[in-house]
Amino acid sequence: MPATGGLVRPGRRAAADAGRIQLRGIAQVALSASPWTGLLFTVALFADGWRIGLYGLLGAAASTVAASVLGADRNGLAKGLEGYCGCLTGISIVVRFGASWRTALVAVLAGAVCSVLGAAAGRLLGRIGLPALTAPFCLVAGVLAIALPTAPAAAAPPAAGDGVTRLSAAELGHAFCDNVGQVFFLDRWYAGLILLLGLLVASRVAAAAAACGSVVAIAAACAMGLPADRISAGLYGYNAVLVAIALAATFLTLTAWTAGYAVLAALASVPFTAAWQAFAQPSGGSPFTWPFVVTTWLFLAAAPALDRPGLSFEKAK
Amino acid sequence: MPATGGLVRPGRRAAADAGRIQLRGIAQVALSASPWTGLLFTVALFADGWRIGLYGLLGAAASTVAASVLGADRNGLAKGLEGYCGCLTGISIVVRFGASWRTALVAVLAGAVCSVLGAAAGRLLGRIGLPALTAPFCLVAGVLAIALPTAPAAAAPPAAGDGVTRLSAAELGHAFCDNVGQVFFLDRWYAGLILLLGLLVASRVAAAAAACGSVVAIAAACAMGLPADRISAGLYGYNAVLVAIALAATFLTLTAWTAGYAVLAALASVPFTAAWQAFAQPSGGSPFTWPFVVTTWLFLAAAPALDRPGLSFEKAK
Amino acid sequence: MPATGGLVRPGRRAAADAGRIQLRGIAQVALSASPWTGLLFTVALFADGWRIGLYGLLGAAASTVAASVLGADRNGLAKGLEGYCGCLTGISIVVRFGASWRTALVAVLAGAVCSVLGAAAGRLLGRIGLPALTAPFCLVAGVLAIALPTAPAAAAPPAAGDGVTRLSAAELGHAFCDNVGQVFFLDRWYAGLILLLGLLVASRVAAAAAACGSVVAIAAACAMGLPADRISAGLYGYNAVLVAIALAATFLTLTAWTAGYAVLAALASVPFTAAWQAFAQPSGGSPFTWPFVVTTWLFLAAAPALDRPGLSFEKAK
Repeated sequence: MPATGGLVRPGRRAAADAGRIQLRGIAQVALSASPWTGLLFTVALFADGWRIGLYGLLGAAASTVAASVLGADRNGLAKGLEGYCGCLTGISIVVRFGASWRTALVAVLAGAVCSVLGAAAGRLLGRIGLPALTAPFCLVAGVLAIALPTAPAAAAPPAAGDGVTRLSAAELGHAFCDNVGQVFFLDRWYAGLILLLGLLVASRVAAAAAACGSVVAIAAACAMGLPADRISAGLYGYNAVLVAIALAATFLTLTAWTAGYAVLAALASVPFTAAWQAFAQPSGGSPFTWPFVVTTWLFLAAAPALDRPGLSFEKAK
Repeated sequence: MPATGGLVRPGRRAAADAGRIQLRGIAQVALSASPWTGLLFTVALFADGWRIGLYGLLGAAASTVAASVLGADRNGLAKGLEGYCGCLTGISIVVRFGASWRTALVAVLAGAVCSVLGAAAGRLLGRIGLPALTAPFCLVAGVLAIALPTAPAAAAPPAAGDGVTRLSAAELGHAFCDNVGQVFFLDRWYAGLILLLGLLVASRVAAAAAACGSVVAIAAACAMGLPADRISAGLYGYNAVLVAIALAATFLTLTAWTAGYAVLAALASVPFTAAWQAFAQPSGGSPFTWPFVVTTWLFLAAAPALDRPGLSFEKAK
Repeated sequence: MPATGGLVRPGRRAAADAGRIQLRGIAQVALSASPWTGLLFTVALFADGWRIGLYGLLGAAASTVAASVLGADRNGLAKGLEGYCGCLTGISIVVRFGASWRTALVAVLAGAVCSVLGAAAGRLLGRIGLPALTAPFCLVAGVLAIALPTAPAAAAPPAAGDGVTRLSAAELGHAFCDNVGQVFFLDRWYAGLILLLGLLVASRVAAAAAACGSVVAIAAACAMGLPADRISAGLYGYNAVLVAIALAATFLTLTAWTAGYAVLAALASVPFTAAWQAFAQPSGGSPFTWPFVVTTWLFLAAAPALDRPGLSFEKAK
C-alpha cells in the first residue's frame, strides 16, 4: 500500500516504497521496523552532524541496493533488514576517516559487503535460531578500523579504578542520553533523546527497555570504577541499551523473568564492553557493537534451556 | 537417596543433597561426578589457601543456585554440571583481585552469568555433539581479567629459547604436581598431589591419564625450550592434564589408539598454551583453560571421522 | 590404475600411487586435484629454495601418512585432501625457524595435528556445507608462530597512507607474480609464474581467476595507500588469488554474476589481510591464509541465499 493516499503514479509509488525501506533500514539498527522510528533516527543523525546523517543514508542505501541487485530475500528487504548494517558502517567510516569522495566510495563498497555478510549470517545463524543482529557491521567496520589506522594507537587502555566512580548530575544526564546516542556513534545528549523518542513512537516497551538498559549500564560502570569521562560519553552503555531492547522488547516475551534476565545480560555487557575496548585499543580497533551481539546471542541461545515463563523464544524468527 | 543412612528429616535430606551437588560441582572441574573427589578437591583448595577454598565454594554455590532459579535442567544440576564453571570463576577472581565484599559480589554475579553461558553452550554445542567443558568459565574470567586490569601489563612475553630446557629433580617434581594444581590455580605441590588423590578415588584411569598428561607436557615444554621457572610452576601443563583426562578417561573408550590420540592432543596443547599466554599477556589476559577446551573440542570432533577402535565417541552425550 | 602403462609390479604400483597422492596434496593448496599441477608446484617450491621444497614435501607426506594411520576417509586421501595443510605448515616452519632436525620433527608432528584438525573441520563444517580450506594449516602455523617467537615483535604495524600508492612497472610485475607465489610463502617472481603455469595445466579458468585476483588485489592495495614494498612482495594479494580461485573456478559455477561476486570477495580480502597483519604483528603472528578462509566461507555461505545464476553452490560438497 502506498504511504500517501489517493491516486499515485507507479513511479511515485516506487519512490515511496524505496523511502520507506530506507527509513526502516535505519530503524532496524534498534530492532524496529517502523518508518516513523527511522525518520526520527534520521533526524537524530542530522542533529548530531550533517555528515553523519549523509553517510548513514548513503550506507543504508548502498547495502539495500546491493542486496536487491544480488537477489536477496525480498521479505527481509522490505522490512529494512538489509539497511541497518550499511547505515552503521557508513557512519563509522565518516566518524573515523572524515567525509570525502574516497570515503564515500569505501562506504558504498563496505555497504555491499555488508549485504553479502548479512546473507551469510542469516544462513549460518538461522540454523541455530539466532538473528544476525549487527554482526556484519561489526566485522566490516572492525576490519576497516584496523586496516586503515588514522593515528598512533593509544598506549594505555583505560583502567578500572579501585573505588566506585561518582558522577555529577550533569555527567549522569549525559551518560543516560549518550548511552543511547552511541548506538549510532552520536555524542550529543539531544541526539540520544531524539533516538529515545524514535523508539517510543514504535514501542513503549522498547523505549523503556532502552532507558532501563542505560541506567543499569551506568550503575555497573560506576561500581566497576571505570573513568567518569568515558562513562558520561556513553562508551560503556550503548551495548547494554541494545541488549535490553533485544531481550526485553524484541526476541523474548516480556515477563518478570525475562525482565530480570535482560537486566543480568545488560549488566554482563558492561565489563564485556570494557574488556573489548582494552583488548582492541592497541591495534586501533574498537568493540563496535560486538558485546551486544555476543551477549544477546548467548542469552538467546540459553533461553529455551531454561524453564521459566517468557524464556522460550519461539516468538523470534 | 540420602547420603546418611537411617531416619533423616526432609530438611536434613535436602541439605545433604545440596552438599552432594556442591561437591560434585567441584569434582566436575576435572570431569568427575563423584562427591568424594569433590571433597578431596575442596581439601586441596583450602590446603593452598583458605580464601581460595572459600571463593571456590562461593562461586560453585552461586552458579548452582542461579541455574536452579533460572530453571535449568535438573539432571545436569544433580550431577554438578552447573557448579564447576562458577567454582573456577570464583577462584580466578580471588587469585587476581583478592578477597573483599566487592569481589565476593563479583564472584556471585559472575557465577550467575556462568550458569546462563552453560545453558547456551549446552544448546549450541549439543547440536554438534560436543560438551561445553570449561568454556563459560574461560569467557567470564577472561572478560573480567581484561576489563579490570590489576597492574601494568608485562611488556615481554616469555620467549621460547633456542635449546632444550633442563630441569633439576626438584623442578621436575614441582612441575609434575603443579601441572595438576594449576587446573584450580593452585601453586603448592601438595595441593596438586591431593587433587591427584581426589581423581584416584573416582577413577584409576582418570588419575593415570592426568599423570601421563603432566609428564607429556613437561617433555614438550622442555623440548620447546620454554622457561624453566614457568614450566615448574605448572603454567604450560594444566591444559595437557585436562586434555588427557577428557580424551583418555571421559569421552572416548580407552584403547591403544585413543591413548596415542590423547598423547598427540596433550602434546599439541603445550604450544597452544604458550601461544595463548604470549597473545593474551599484553592486554592483561590469560589463556585460562581455553587451550584445553579448544583442543578437546577439535580432537573429539575429529574422532568419529577416524576409523580406529575407540575413536567413535558415541559414549559421550 | 597405474600411472605408468604396461606390466608393473604391485610395489611399484603402490609407490606410483603414493607419489600421485603426494603431488595431489601439493596441488590442493590451490584447490586442484591434478598431479601435474602438483608437479609444477613442487618445481616452483624448489625453484624458490631447496629447503622450502623439502619441507613442503615432508609436511605433505607427514600429514598424509598420519591421516592414513588414523584411518581417515580413503577417498579424500586419494584426492590429496590430507596433504595440502601439512605442506603449507612444513613450509611455514622452515621459512620462520630454518632447517634442522628439530624443525623437521616439529614439521612432522605439526603435519599429524593438521590431519586431525582436517578431520574435525570436515565434520564441523560439513554440516553447514562449507569446505575446510586451509583452516587447519592456519591454526597450527599460527600457534607455532606465536608460541616460538624468533625475534622481538615489530613495534609499528604498517600503516595505510593518505594518498594512493603508485608502483613502477617492475614493482607491478613483482606484485602480480608474488601475489601468486606468497600462497606458498615464495618471494621470487619466477616461482609465482611457475605456480600460475601449474594452475593453467589443470584448468584455464583457475589460472585466469588467479591472475584476475592478483590484479584486483594490486588495485585495491594501491587505492588504500598501502606501502609499495609490501604490495610488490605480494603480502596483500595472496588471499585474493585464493579467494578468486575458490569462488570463480572451484565452488561456484562461473557466470557473469559469480565473476562479479568473486571480484567483490577478492576486493574485500585485501583490507581484511591488512587488518589481520596489523592485528597479529605485535604478538609475532601472521594472518597466513585466514583472510582467504574466512572470506570464502562467508561468501559461500551467503551464495544460496542470493537468487542469481551460478550462486546456488550445490556443485560443491
